[in-house]
Amino acid sequence: MTRLDELGEKAIVSDLIELFDPDGAHNLGDDCAVVDLGRDYLLVTTDIINRKTHIPEGAGSRDVGWHIAAINLSDIAAMGGQPLGMLFAFGLRGDAPVSDLTEISEGIRECCSNYAIPVLGGDTKESDVLTISGTAIGTVPKSEILWRKGAKPGDIIAMTGVLGKPMEWFRAKDPHKAQFLLRVVPRIREGRILAQSQAVTSCIDMSDGLSTSLHHLAKAGGVGLEVDFNRLLFAQGLSLEEKEHALHLGGDYELLFTVSPDRAEHVFNADFGTSPITQVGEVTEDTGVFILKDGATSQLPDKGYEHFGGSA
Amino acid sequence: MTRLDELGEKAIVSDLIELFDPDGAHNLGDDCAVVDLGRDYLLVTTDIINRKTHIPEGAGSRDVGWHIAAINLSDIAAMGGQPLGMLFAFGLRGDAPVSDLTEISEGIRECCSNYAIPVLGGDTKESDVLTISGTAIGTVPKSEILWRKGAKPGDIIAMTGVLGKPMEWFRAKDPHKAQFLLRVVPRIREGRILAQSQAVTSCIDMSDGLSTSLHHLAKAGGVGLEVDFNRLLFAQGLSLEEKEHALHLGGDYELLFTVSPDRAEHVFNADFGTSPITQVGEVTEDTGVFILKDGATSQLPDKGYEHFGGSA
Repeated sequence: MTRLDELGEKAIVSDLIELFDPDGAHNLGDDCAVVDLGRDYLLVTTDIINRKTHIPEGAGSRDVGWHIAAINLSDIAAMGGQPLGMLFAFGLRGDAPVSDLTEISEGIRECCSNYAIPVLGGDTKESDVLTISGTAIGTVPKSEILWRKGAKPGDIIAMTGVLGKPMEWFRAKDPHKAQFLLRVVPRIREGRILAQSQAVTSCIDMSDGLSTSLHHLAKAGGVGLEVDFNRLLFAQGLSLEEKEHALHLGGDYELLFTVSPDRAEHVFNADFGTSPITQVGEVTEDTGVFILKDGATSQLPDKGYEHFGGSA
Repeated sequence: MTRLDELGEKAIVSDLIELFDPDGAHNLGDDCAVVDLGRDYLLVTTDIINRKTHIPEGAGSRDVGWHIAAINLSDIAAMGGQPLGMLFAFGLRGDAPVSDLTEISEGIRECCSNYAIPVLGGDTKESDVLTISGTAIGTVPKSEILWRKGAKPGDIIAMTGVLGKPMEWFRAKDPHKAQFLLRVVPRIREGRILAQSQAVTSCIDMSDGLSTSLHHLAKAGGVGLEVDFNRLLFAQGLSLEEKEHALHLGGDYELLFTVSPDRAEHVFNADFGTSPITQVGEVTEDTGVFILKDGATSQLPDKGYEHFGGSA
């Protein structure tokens, strides 16, 4: 009898995709589910968090609320979409104070209001373990959608924001620093700019870390991706060792994408405001994921965050 | 410090609606969230279940999978919609056997395939308590949508199927009978017939029991609803006491709706196949919910299933 933690998340997800979409008709495994609405695609995504996997003990409830909203919105952003609304389902202990739910909900409202996204509905149930699932829906014009597949040799690899912000919490797992993990910034505006540029050939949000995200884009595109360590932007105050760790650390939720060199100016000259984008590498013919560091190129293994701690 | 179980589900939901939709712009609190797509409405709903609230100990995993799919599809059906697809998020213990997830997923696939609905995506996480959230999306032409509001005095009250099927499980809580609770039949085809009839003035699925559902329709419409105990169809083999209990028992997920007498033939002459509909009462001017039994009319209190066991 194999246990889920022996199988690991990647194998689990792969088995589920095989079960639910054996002929690949529904493109399972991208950041969102995609439904044809005629001129537009409807994007739908759902993420579930609970005390064990995403809610550090002692974290502020408002931060938890912000988090569940933001990570779902991030999936819509990764496909270039404009979110239309969100739903939430709560599992809470009956003996929990009402203020827990109120504060989580205030955090949700804060995040959604910040991006002018309405909360449209939800569900509440009793649960022995605090659990929150979010669902975000959005739309994107068909001609603008950003898939994980599509990177071509010669494309420029780029990303929004910086890597390793959650390290501030990971260092000591201090609950007072949990906001570095939880206050994810969904790159909705950036995703729309990328989508409208008609220059972006593939895109993903780095929820499971840079290395895993690079592997996803490489595999989906049947290409190789090479990043230059010295061009990566890291959060302030990280040691070299922490920077190396941050290559695989989950929780950044920045967008990682590839840009066709022919139309690169439509991306790199666009106005990203206070959150610039950075060119970090290039797509190669040779399949695989590589990192250039200290003048040498080596393989970058897929060691990003994996639920169920599988060894796959 | 008030606890959630002191407040109770109805008050909790009411507070959340006030927080997220203070001016009622988004019609929170119906069976689905509703988004304007032009000619159609998009319907979105999410429901979460866990070991504590909806998964009886010992229940078959396939039945659990069927259940989470069916209860979400039931919400789409209650608004007259055609489901377009579903997403699922799983929280499972790392030491759970892979076969648990496989069987739950097989149950989900069985239910979705039965109604030709694709599974479009999802999420898997580790959780100490088995938790599954489902999200269903669907569409309905604007002219056909069925709301909870809309019942008018003189309308006929009717329902699909029978009441009290889950009693078979509630009697002894025998895990071998959990399918009576879990194998919910989502009334998708029936919902579409009701929507297309242009005769149905309000509709709800009775997930929380007949009495609570009657109170929802009465309150939403600003009217009264009176049902005739003798006209209610119950599951086979229920004692009189069990029938009285079944008025408040959650888990039936049949559609309860009101029909305009002017167009009643478009509903009551329609072909509902092997699952007929039954006229059970009438909408009244006097607000409230009433039951006619043994020649006397009395108030039917709102005693349906309430999570967090509040006394409200």
